[in-house]
Amino acid sequence: LIEQHRIGDSVASGRRVSRLDHVGIAVESIDAALTYYTDQLGLTVVHDEVADDPGVRLCYVDGGDTFIQLVEPIRPGPVREFLDSSGEGLHHLCFATDDLDSALVEWPGQEDARVFMGGRDRRACFVLGNPEGVIIELTEEEPQSQR
Amino acid sequence: LIEQHRIGDSVASGRRVSRLDHVGIAVESIDAALTYYTDQLGLTVVHDEVADDPGVRLCYVDGGDTFIQLVEPIRPGPVREFLDSSGEGLHHLCFATDDLDSALVEWPGQEDARVFMGGRDRRACFVLGNPEGVIIELTEEEPQSQR
Repeated sequence: LIEQHRIGDSVASGRRVSRLDHVGIAVESIDAALTYYTDQLGLTVVHDEVADDPGVRLCYVDGGDTFIQLVEPIRPGPVREFLDSSGEGLHHLCFATDDLDSALVEWPGQEDARVFMGGRDRRACFVLGNPEGVIIELTEEEPQSQR
Repeated sequence: LIEQHRIGDSVASGRRVSRLDHVGIAVESIDAALTYYTDQLGLTVVHDEVADDPGVRLCYVDGGDTFIQLVEPIRPGPVREFLDSSGEGLHHLCFATDDLDSALVEWPGQEDARVFMGGRDRRACFVLGNPEGVIIELTEEEPQSQR
């Protein structure tokens, strides 16, 4: 894969991502945070799971075409470190892509980006760079079970 | 309006908001920040304007049903203060509602929330509270010119 990286290539081939899939919010307790989104805003929970590899509980609230993803760490790791250093709040943007591997191959400097099984049975990856301080994740449109 | 507030009323009447309209990102320079979203992610700018009352330039990037809104202050104000204290990064979530006035009337404790003309000719309002550190804005689905 690394050999196929063509540093500096443009994205002229088209959109690398298709849409904003979710906004991640780091929280100490999903149970405590969820009330605002369900009772105050009147939104609906569509998915709630533990992602074992990153070690987080993920709760997806229906925001239309884009989810609000509440993220609660269940053990030490990057989200726990974020909470300890920055407190609760907006954590990352995640964009959907039709083909995660192709997106990374064409993307300069992502050799060390680690693909993992994200929420909702989708492969995902935090890309390196954090433009203007924003943590960026990519996830696949289709669940792994349908690929 | 204030007299009509019924503190503690539930949202049983339905969804108070319909969907996530945009995610706001505070940046020092939209011109500098935009390259990532257009060239790296391959997304498209759909709107770019100066909102004179809040005193910000707003640039909307197409994220599907939800916009990514880059916010650059053009004079002192809350976004300038955010940048000075927290640096560039994710700033707020904005939810769309069919009727901003009704949403606020039914919403406990929003007597001091100030409605202003937000981007894209929509009335908007930052609601008070900041659940889990997240700044929350509401905006109307329809532009003012069509109301």
